[in-house]
Amino acid sequence: MPNKVDYHLLNKLDSAIDSVSLNQIRHTLNNLSPQDIAHQLESAPAKYRQFLWELVDDDNSGEVLQELSEDIQTEFLKEMDGAEVAALTEGLDVDDIVDILQQLPERLIPEVLQSMSIQDRHRVETVLTYDEESAGGLMDTEIITVRPDLTIDVVLRYLRRFDDIPDTTDNLFVVNRRDTFLGTLPIGRLLTASPSTTVREIMNTEAMAIPIDMADSEVAKLFKRYDLVSAAVIDSSSRLVGRVTIDDVVDVIIEDADHSLLAMARLSDTEDTFSSVTRAAPRRAIWLGVNLLTAILASSVISLFSETLEKVVALAILMPIVASMGGVAGSQTLTVVVRAMALGQVERSNISWLLGKEFSVAALNGLLWAAVMGGVASYWFNDWNLAVVIGLAMLINLCAAGAVGTLLPVILRSVKIDPALAGSVILTTVTDVVGFLSFLGLATLFYA
Amino acid sequence: MPNKVDYHLLNKLDSAIDSVSLNQIRHTLNNLSPQDIAHQLESAPAKYRQFLWELVDDDNSGEVLQELSEDIQTEFLKEMDGAEVAALTEGLDVDDIVDILQQLPERLIPEVLQSMSIQDRHRVETVLTYDEESAGGLMDTEIITVRPDLTIDVVLRYLRRFDDIPDTTDNLFVVNRRDTFLGTLPIGRLLTASPSTTVREIMNTEAMAIPIDMADSEVAKLFKRYDLVSAAVIDSSSRLVGRVTIDDVVDVIIEDADHSLLAMARLSDTEDTFSSVTRAAPRRAIWLGVNLLTAILASSVISLFSETLEKVVALAILMPIVASMGGVAGSQTLTVVVRAMALGQVERSNISWLLGKEFSVAALNGLLWAAVMGGVASYWFNDWNLAVVIGLAMLINLCAAGAVGTLLPVILRSVKIDPALAGSVILTTVTDVVGFLSFLGLATLFYA
Repeated sequence: MPNKVDYHLLNKLDSAIDSVSLNQIRHTLNNLSPQDIAHQLESAPAKYRQFLWELVDDDNSGEVLQELSEDIQTEFLKEMDGAEVAALTEGLDVDDIVDILQQLPERLIPEVLQSMSIQDRHRVETVLTYDEESAGGLMDTEIITVRPDLTIDVVLRYLRRFDDIPDTTDNLFVVNRRDTFLGTLPIGRLLTASPSTTVREIMNTEAMAIPIDMADSEVAKLFKRYDLVSAAVIDSSSRLVGRVTIDDVVDVIIEDADHSLLAMARLSDTEDTFSSVTRAAPRRAIWLGVNLLTAILASSVISLFSETLEKVVALAILMPIVASMGGVAGSQTLTVVVRAMALGQVERSNISWLLGKEFSVAALNGLLWAAVMGGVASYWFNDWNLAVVIGLAMLINLCAAGAVGTLLPVILRSVKIDPALAGSVILTTVTDVVGFLSFLGLATLFYA
Repeated sequence: MPNKVDYHLLNKLDSAIDSVSLNQIRHTLNNLSPQDIAHQLESAPAKYRQFLWELVDDDNSGEVLQELSEDIQTEFLKEMDGAEVAALTEGLDVDDIVDILQQLPERLIPEVLQSMSIQDRHRVETVLTYDEESAGGLMDTEIITVRPDLTIDVVLRYLRRFDDIPDTTDNLFVVNRRDTFLGTLPIGRLLTASPSTTVREIMNTEAMAIPIDMADSEVAKLFKRYDLVSAAVIDSSSRLVGRVTIDDVVDVIIEDADHSLLAMARLSDTEDTFSSVTRAAPRRAIWLGVNLLTAILASSVISLFSETLEKVVALAILMPIVASMGGVAGSQTLTVVVRAMALGQVERSNISWLLGKEFSVAALNGLLWAAVMGGVASYWFNDWNLAVVIGLAMLINLCAAGAVGTLLPVILRSVKIDPALAGSVILTTVTDVVGFLSFLGLATLFYA
């Protein structure tokens, strides 16, 4: 495992295409670990990726593919037939094979399964039936189980019959004759116990067992909260069916965090930094279009007041300030609430408290900056009416931002709409509309 | 370990304060795991926290404290003296003790150290000297080491002399007489090897060793990329000094992701959803104030064109659309680049490619939505000049957003300024200013 990634590879690549040093690139690339090769592919502009991918040695390519983001996997997989995919995935863990198969078009999957060994096929088929975003979709079926009545000595001798023990094994699983999950045997206890002890005496009967249909974000919460390294997955009749390990959970944690970040900026989850322009542009266009619609809506609110605007041009100059302050305050509140929801901290019992707090924070800051802005406006345009109008409008808009920013994500979640993405779109619309409406509406009263 | 958190605790609490069921709350609370107690505290409004905290049993409170966010730790710690803190942290892992001590005021630390056992004090003092955000600050010093010339049989007998093995041990560390790190002995190999094998024969000499001064985000990248569960930490002379484990790394991953999300919404890292209004308001006020400044700057750009605005009121109605589209396109690009930088994907070698791509995406979307908006404007105001002006302005602003959104975070990073926070503030200013300037400037040319 090399300690350093060769970041100059890309530079070399550019000149290599036209030269004879292609073999050198191939050599450099394949001397990296699969993870580093994957990193090189992900950091490479789209046009170089297929090219680099073809340089990867066959015995490396399965491991590399499994490390890549789903978007890039799909890109490479669409060039392959079933037998090629089967060859590629040979030797990978079942959960990783399933992840890859899930990127394939439906019709190709039977073809791949057909080309697998019978044992692999059976295990892959089992995991394939579970939802990709559940414990079942996340789990691996390669597990080591022991019976409670064995002595530690027997367990140690039993383990020695394995060629290797799966990575990330911090527990053996204790089951009865019918595979019912009874508890775990932590490796630490196995190593420190006296050989004559039985498994039953030292097993952990309070160990977490994850129901197979639990959502992957819930699994991630459990792993985070209890610092788990691996956990048993059980079916509805408490039978042990697999295990989830921290490496896969870390991927879920990163995906979930990534989702909030991208959604707040109106980006889709599959956004790939180095994808081609023709792939990236249409995806972003959709949300720009939605934003155009909401911006036109806000403008139509402004147009209601064109007479007032014609009379007092200062209103046109100041009106973006009111909308902008509402937008920032609203996105502060929305982000806080969306994040707390992701951490499982927002419950029926504390929503009204949270609403009160966010409203008060917004109102206090509204008062502060309304006063400041009022002063600036009266000085700038030498008009005290303007100061009152912009101050009041700003206060109204910040209060609206605080209230809507708290309630909106809660409501969206309850109707199963993504609060991060839809929330930020709707919230901006609200703060724009309320901002223009209150500012120009009040101005019309004052200057009518 | 209970499988279910009691979310009704908070509801009960409200009525309990005035009733005699306080003992029941105490009982419910202390029957939860430390992690669940911490979760209850974090989800509780600030005013209840101190109250709940005082109900936590003494022998639980260290573990609970260690699970809390830094902000809440500080809150509780400021009520305690050195001896109390020392008592509280007894029995915790060294890295967790250090995390807690880092929340204390400087002057209190010697007092706490004084109250510790000599062995604990020595180990804590060592770790305290390292930067909180480095491998040294993250590591634990409780490690099990073996020599390469031992046989597996001897190692197994040696391990049985321990009462317990530290959690998350997937490797023993192999060192020589001078504590130089030689490699790891994976537990899996230890368990499957024949008793007469020596450590040297089966040790992993290519195992990752982390330099003690490596930044914690870099450590997190290594763990993510290589699916590590634990890794050795070495000093500058390759001596083994500790180990980093995945549970602490997961915290770093979450903090880093959280930071980007919060910073993009102009929130500080210590934002606590359930903090009191008086704590939350001033923190948010700062960024609202900065936004007010930039919004005033944008308005002063508008004021340059007050004559034109007086002539054509449609300009006032449409101008927010140009700024808004630039803002969304810019934040799309900024988010993509900030995220890629966090993943270590943005290097000197691919910045110009990335700039080209983001600029092209913005230009294509600019063309598309400029055409649409031009159509809408000409239909709305029956004025073809307006269509040309808004179309051109939108195209210019989106291109600027794409270019600045790519370059700005790269430049900010190179001068060591946080690209997420400063980036989003500056970018909005740029898209507002460019939006108003191009739209009203072009309009002045057309309508002069």
